[in-house]
Amino acid sequence: MTKKTTWSDRFESALHPAIAIFNASIGFDIELIEYDLTGSVAHAKMLAKTGIISEEEAQQLEQGLEKIRQEYRQGEFNPGVDAEDVHFAVERRLTEILGDVGKKLHTGRSRNDQVGTDIRLYLKAEINEIRTYLREFQSVLLNLAENNIETLIPGYTHLQRAQPLSLAHHLMAYVQMAQRDWERLGDVLKRTNISPLGCGALAGTTFPIDRHYSAELLGFESIYENSLDGVSDRDFAIEFLCAASLIMVHLSRLSEEMILWASEEFNFISLKDSCATGSSIMPQKKNPDVPELVRGKTGRVFGHLQALLVIMKGLPLAYNKDLQEDKEGIFDAVKTVKGCLEAMTILLSEGIIFNQTRLNSAVAEDFSNATDVADYLATKGVPFREAYNLVGKVVKTSLAQGKLLKDLTIEEWQQIHPAFATDIYEAISPKTVVSARNSYGGTGFEQVKIAIANAKSELKQ
Amino acid sequence: MTKKTTWSDRFESALHPAIAIFNASIGFDIELIEYDLTGSVAHAKMLAKTGIISEEEAQQLEQGLEKIRQEYRQGEFNPGVDAEDVHFAVERRLTEILGDVGKKLHTGRSRNDQVGTDIRLYLKAEINEIRTYLREFQSVLLNLAENNIETLIPGYTHLQRAQPLSLAHHLMAYVQMAQRDWERLGDVLKRTNISPLGCGALAGTTFPIDRHYSAELLGFESIYENSLDGVSDRDFAIEFLCAASLIMVHLSRLSEEMILWASEEFNFISLKDSCATGSSIMPQKKNPDVPELVRGKTGRVFGHLQALLVIMKGLPLAYNKDLQEDKEGIFDAVKTVKGCLEAMTILLSEGIIFNQTRLNSAVAEDFSNATDVADYLATKGVPFREAYNLVGKVVKTSLAQGKLLKDLTIEEWQQIHPAFATDIYEAISPKTVVSARNSYGGTGFEQVKIAIANAKSELKQ
Amino acid sequence: MTKKTTWSDRFESALHPAIAIFNASIGFDIELIEYDLTGSVAHAKMLAKTGIISEEEAQQLEQGLEKIRQEYRQGEFNPGVDAEDVHFAVERRLTEILGDVGKKLHTGRSRNDQVGTDIRLYLKAEINEIRTYLREFQSVLLNLAENNIETLIPGYTHLQRAQPLSLAHHLMAYVQMAQRDWERLGDVLKRTNISPLGCGALAGTTFPIDRHYSAELLGFESIYENSLDGVSDRDFAIEFLCAASLIMVHLSRLSEEMILWASEEFNFISLKDSCATGSSIMPQKKNPDVPELVRGKTGRVFGHLQALLVIMKGLPLAYNKDLQEDKEGIFDAVKTVKGCLEAMTILLSEGIIFNQTRLNSAVAEDFSNATDVADYLATKGVPFREAYNLVGKVVKTSLAQGKLLKDLTIEEWQQIHPAFATDIYEAISPKTVVSARNSYGGTGFEQVKIAIANAKSELKQ
Amino acid sequence: MTKKTTWSDRFESALHPAIAIFNASIGFDIELIEYDLTGSVAHAKMLAKTGIISEEEAQQLEQGLEKIRQEYRQGEFNPGVDAEDVHFAVERRLTEILGDVGKKLHTGRSRNDQVGTDIRLYLKAEINEIRTYLREFQSVLLNLAENNIETLIPGYTHLQRAQPLSLAHHLMAYVQMAQRDWERLGDVLKRTNISPLGCGALAGTTFPIDRHYSAELLGFESIYENSLDGVSDRDFAIEFLCAASLIMVHLSRLSEEMILWASEEFNFISLKDSCATGSSIMPQKKNPDVPELVRGKTGRVFGHLQALLVIMKGLPLAYNKDLQEDKEGIFDAVKTVKGCLEAMTILLSEGIIFNQTRLNSAVAEDFSNATDVADYLATKGVPFREAYNLVGKVVKTSLAQGKLLKDLTIEEWQQIHPAFATDIYEAISPKTVVSARNSYGGTGFEQVKIAIANAKSELKQ
Repeated sequence: MTKKTTWSDRFESALHPAIAIFNASIGFDIELIEYDLTGSVAHAKMLAKTGIISEEEAQQLEQGLEKIRQEYRQGEFNPGVDAEDVHFAVERRLTEILGDVGKKLHTGRSRNDQVGTDIRLYLKAEINEIRTYLREFQSVLLNLAENNIETLIPGYTHLQRAQPLSLAHHLMAYVQMAQRDWERLGDVLKRTNISPLGCGALAGTTFPIDRHYSAELLGFESIYENSLDGVSDRDFAIEFLCAASLIMVHLSRLSEEMILWASEEFNFISLKDSCATGSSIMPQKKNPDVPELVRGKTGRVFGHLQALLVIMKGLPLAYNKDLQEDKEGIFDAVKTVKGCLEAMTILLSEGIIFNQTRLNSAVAEDFSNATDVADYLATKGVPFREAYNLVGKVVKTSLAQGKLLKDLTIEEWQQIHPAFATDIYEAISPKTVVSARNSYGGTGFEQVKIAIANAKSELKQ
Repeated sequence: MTKKTTWSDRFESALHPAIAIFNASIGFDIELIEYDLTGSVAHAKMLAKTGIISEEEAQQLEQGLEKIRQEYRQGEFNPGVDAEDVHFAVERRLTEILGDVGKKLHTGRSRNDQVGTDIRLYLKAEINEIRTYLREFQSVLLNLAENNIETLIPGYTHLQRAQPLSLAHHLMAYVQMAQRDWERLGDVLKRTNISPLGCGALAGTTFPIDRHYSAELLGFESIYENSLDGVSDRDFAIEFLCAASLIMVHLSRLSEEMILWASEEFNFISLKDSCATGSSIMPQKKNPDVPELVRGKTGRVFGHLQALLVIMKGLPLAYNKDLQEDKEGIFDAVKTVKGCLEAMTILLSEGIIFNQTRLNSAVAEDFSNATDVADYLATKGVPFREAYNLVGKVVKTSLAQGKLLKDLTIEEWQQIHPAFATDIYEAISPKTVVSARNSYGGTGFEQVKIAIANAKSELKQ
Repeated sequence: MTKKTTWSDRFESALHPAIAIFNASIGFDIELIEYDLTGSVAHAKMLAKTGIISEEEAQQLEQGLEKIRQEYRQGEFNPGVDAEDVHFAVERRLTEILGDVGKKLHTGRSRNDQVGTDIRLYLKAEINEIRTYLREFQSVLLNLAENNIETLIPGYTHLQRAQPLSLAHHLMAYVQMAQRDWERLGDVLKRTNISPLGCGALAGTTFPIDRHYSAELLGFESIYENSLDGVSDRDFAIEFLCAASLIMVHLSRLSEEMILWASEEFNFISLKDSCATGSSIMPQKKNPDVPELVRGKTGRVFGHLQALLVIMKGLPLAYNKDLQEDKEGIFDAVKTVKGCLEAMTILLSEGIIFNQTRLNSAVAEDFSNATDVADYLATKGVPFREAYNLVGKVVKTSLAQGKLLKDLTIEEWQQIHPAFATDIYEAISPKTVVSARNSYGGTGFEQVKIAIANAKSELKQ
Repeated sequence: MTKKTTWSDRFESALHPAIAIFNASIGFDIELIEYDLTGSVAHAKMLAKTGIISEEEAQQLEQGLEKIRQEYRQGEFNPGVDAEDVHFAVERRLTEILGDVGKKLHTGRSRNDQVGTDIRLYLKAEINEIRTYLREFQSVLLNLAENNIETLIPGYTHLQRAQPLSLAHHLMAYVQMAQRDWERLGDVLKRTNISPLGCGALAGTTFPIDRHYSAELLGFESIYENSLDGVSDRDFAIEFLCAASLIMVHLSRLSEEMILWASEEFNFISLKDSCATGSSIMPQKKNPDVPELVRGKTGRVFGHLQALLVIMKGLPLAYNKDLQEDKEGIFDAVKTVKGCLEAMTILLSEGIIFNQTRLNSAVAEDFSNATDVADYLATKGVPFREAYNLVGKVVKTSLAQGKLLKDLTIEEWQQIHPAFATDIYEAISPKTVVSARNSYGGTGFEQVKIAIANAKSELKQ
């Protein structure tokens, strides 16, 4: 190849070597190569269908493209910086293989719509994969929930013990969050699943292409209505990064809880050796590295979201080179979310043991049944606010005496308010307390069983 | 009221005054008061329906709440910092009005589910309002497009002239972006329109409440399946801030273009006095403040998104005081997005004039028809890549000679390639060039007319 | 005033009312009024010194400006949206008071350098105030440290107990962080303390002004070397927001710890009523609202930092209206940081009690002395890695037997390794363990005393 | 190696393979290996100096470490995921080489202080390198400025022509920004240049180490005063990312200007082939990829800053695994900032040509001399606000007539105001207008020459 540049003969001299390296995206967009090849095959077929090239040419192009795919998979296709990007790398190799026919592939399209097609094909596939990861994560949680309906755990607000819970109920909160994540990704998919192919550089093309046909071949649900919008739009990528950020929010919350639960103070779970690490100098240490790392990785996904928003802000239409910067953040977010979901799924399924004795005894040793005393009085006709104040006073006195509510004698109860009877002891036992919160979506065991059943049937969809 | 604190009698002393001010949210959550009252009315009705309170008590509560609404609207309800938040302020006033009955309102709910209900009711209303603003913005753009189908404008990639466009086509790109915004807000609405009322503090309640009934009264489509999730979830708010950020991305891109277009160098639009400002010392200045400010305000909405993500990261279940910090960012984002949409709608509808003479002449004075020369050759059988290189060389030579392509003689054309005939002049005239990009979604006039018709019928929905 | 617009007679019609509201900054930049007045007084004096106006005119201007200051302080100066911004509001009022002389004030400056001066004067003052708040925060920590040198507290890595610490040592870590904050703000101050006054709109001025003189009057250390840079630069504001974000990082870490410490599980501190809040339905609750709110407010400061970075990205020189958006974020960050520092200082000084019995017993009940067993062996010649593995095995066995290291008999020790002697018991007692970490900056009591003494003398500076 | 895990014998089973991959940092922290080796050499020397190991052992350790350095440089040291991180990889190899002596290296330190030392050594070196890049960037700008003192360029506010400038003055604004960047990095360096080595896991160590000595060997200016702070602090990294973000803000602003200047409309600069790229289908295109990419890359650096802030928020003391996530963002920010500075320096020095004819004529063809007419009247005694309004009216009339100010006859001038004389023509010629802004830091040629001279001497420091 004697040509000095990739560009038209308007250019006399080649790129400055440092600038060539700075500009090149081949170092990371090679990740898109299979989608690029698939997109090009569809484009070639469309060109033949519309008579822009011959059927035979289309077949040659397809064979050439598939040959490159084989070379790539066998590690034999390794374009360097001089190829600039994956699109040129493929076109160049195709022309080496096919000669002049290779040069016809780019008819009726531009790299602007081509890269837009590639990244959407990539993201469609990855969104579906992440949804599968979410389903596995939900399954493990659901399984744990099913086995722990009657295991109790303190429920917290402000990290202060509030009311005791069924452990299953607590775990099911995360099943719900993951369900929203799953649905949200479905909505992102709707706006990702639109083909920009054939939008050209920005204005469409003079060739009589059939955009609907190539879109159909590639499994897109619809096509961009406006060519400028088609090559400039990165909404779907930002929406994806927001959905990814929310997955990380949920995982970070669960991580925080697992880190707390694994502490000596909480001691609600024990970590198995296979999912924990030690210290280089403290021989007794067993650290919850997985949830810590997941919590930490939350930051990078938020960062990628912000980065792409910043990139898009104030960009005039249509394509600008700034858009090249969309890819690495998306790739890393995909990798991070999948890695974190996988690691947390493993941790939940085989890395932790709930310390049931500790959990069940914990809820018996605090004042988290105080609301139930107030409710008890309320059902006996004492206005809630009065009952509430009364119980507050009891708690204060008991704390001072080092007593729990269950330790009060019936005389003491009746001194507080004559409405108390001996059924108060049963009313404030942890199981009763949990069981009694039987409002829809509450922690009452009946509710929890219904919730598990519902979630199970939802997961089958 | 001799009580020292808002809390139960567990508390002996009142809050430190500085801490009281620090903690209080009444300064901003008063914005939610009407939603709080509406939510409480529904809650009271539900309590009566389920027999938890009497019908008469419910009516009293409703009357009391509506009285507070009137007082608020008349500027007579102005709770101070001692009220802590809007919920306590209302409950306190209600008890002043009704006595003991007022104290019954809070049965079977907690501030945690109450504030969650309020913020969702608020956001539902505001999302619908923003969608109306989007529709008005689209209408104005559509109107401008309809009047400028045959007005030409240079199309850019990399801010370099690329191919000429129908101005209508350019404007329609923004109609499409706003359409996605509209649809996206619809998806956000799905996940906002879920009632947490009755989730209690975190665990549900022991009272036989009917969450479906109160949700129905408030127009919610469904209810939270898990009480912990119900009081802890702020996904909808983050999703909203992401959707709001994307609206700002789109407005910032249009703003950037308008700022460029209003510059002396572009001179594509003129600003009317009613939508521009001057300088305090340079008498000739007329500044495009509106789009500049819109571009600048983009930052604050991104900032609110980041802020709420940061707030939620790593929070253990269920409610934590950190969540109080969700409101101001949402309020400001709502206000900003509405303000920017309104200002841009006014600017487009009555603040600018497209300088049509300048626009139509601009596209005739550059090399943005070069692709068409390559396409011309390609249709005559020259492989695209060869044609492309050839034209590149012509551009270089012409530039050096200070000539445009239309200035080349037929002899010069044929010297470049024998396939050129006299129809080349017609083929590269701006109108032909635009018209020829007749692929679906392209800038060809026929396509643009179809796109406008489609958008019009979509807007009617 | 019959004039239709604030601008020159180039403008025929007034602003659209909605646009006027959208553009106006008077709603928030009124916060700068005292700095604006002070800056104008200095400017007037400079104009007189350089002979641009007469001494008498300067005196009149000063009197007029001080009159406005009095009006403002007495609540009598309340400009509306029609004033656009604080600068015009003041100039208009000044001309009402003084007539034509008032119109001379704006000679040789522009709003661009004027607002730059105001915001820097504001920030200089606030940075100094925040530094004072930091000093108070440090003092309270230092005081607590001094009283708790021999109080022990478990030290954590990965939230797993690692090695016991002097509570004072733990608290002193925050004194160090605050010290860096204090120093960092000093560096921000260097780059805030530069006068842009006299840079004009962008290019300097034709009047023979003396920028050094006005800068000196306003207490600026130097002046901008380049007029374009002077009116466009917001580095100092971003740097401030970064420094503010770091203060919030530190406060959020301490907050997280206090929330943990106040939990039933840790129970390291008790909250006093004056600095805690309750629940609307759970009478037993006492919530650590202050640290939760501080942790939550961290998000908004990060958000302001991101917002201003976004605003500045890609802005061409010189002044653009986008810059108007710098103020609200800075104001809110200043208010937030001061509010959080104040609240945490109060909380530390009068809102918590360290539960010393619990703390001292906690460190005796875990394996956080395991490193010391390894070190014990290492000093007796066993290679560290071998000792470390050996101790790991002991921990595992002891855990299985429900024993602590201190419970092992001397025979058991010697069975593990013959190097153990009876001094092992003393070597692994908490006080010895803490005391032994006597390396510089370590938790050994001697080191802690030195650190407290050093910090005390530093704080006096 | 028969051992199942890296950890102490407390651990029975090895890590789950997927968790091992998830946890491992060796994939990226290998970048720190040379700093890790250097840090270990210093630690070994300190251990010998304090008698903790023998001189001979220290020499063996040094030789072993330097051997690993050679192996690494020759591509022979490629630890896999099983090595977990660079520290273990080195320690393991060292023990292979040296046997038991290798195991002594880790005495008196922990990975927590070790990695903190590594990252600081890395960042110190990179900050110094970035400062060198900044100096080169400034030199090129200064050179361009020196050659363009009398080249004029329109000065803008709100992207509207405001007042004409010396091109040198415009370029010098960026020299000033880079100067602040250089100084700011110096301040970051102060807080990076502190040694945490010897802080141990969190509490210091029982060995009689000499932290000052190892710090001195490594060129640190001081050492951390508090061991918990030493292992937990990442302020310096956040500060660096903020400084890096500001460099990107400045580069993005210059980039935006260069993109505008290279547009057909502005046409202030021409791009050379060596620093521009073309289009795959539009043969005439020559795109300013470098500044576009720099502008785009701004987003990722902002993203890294946010990511690290998010990671640090609310982390309890001391080390947490989340901190492992600090590295990749820092590495990428360093690479990005260096790449962008280098590319922009090349672009400025050999990639663009200022179109001087176009520039000089541009400033003669607008109303950017209007302020000078007002100033002209003001010096003749007309109050500035009156003069300003008068000139506004002249501009409006002239615009309507298609005239510039220089085209008005002397009669027309005097009709406007009798104070005008024939020297008005000279007064409003671009050179005079620029020259007249001779206030300190203004665009007047004399000021610009002084500024260049000052900057030159500053750069020599």
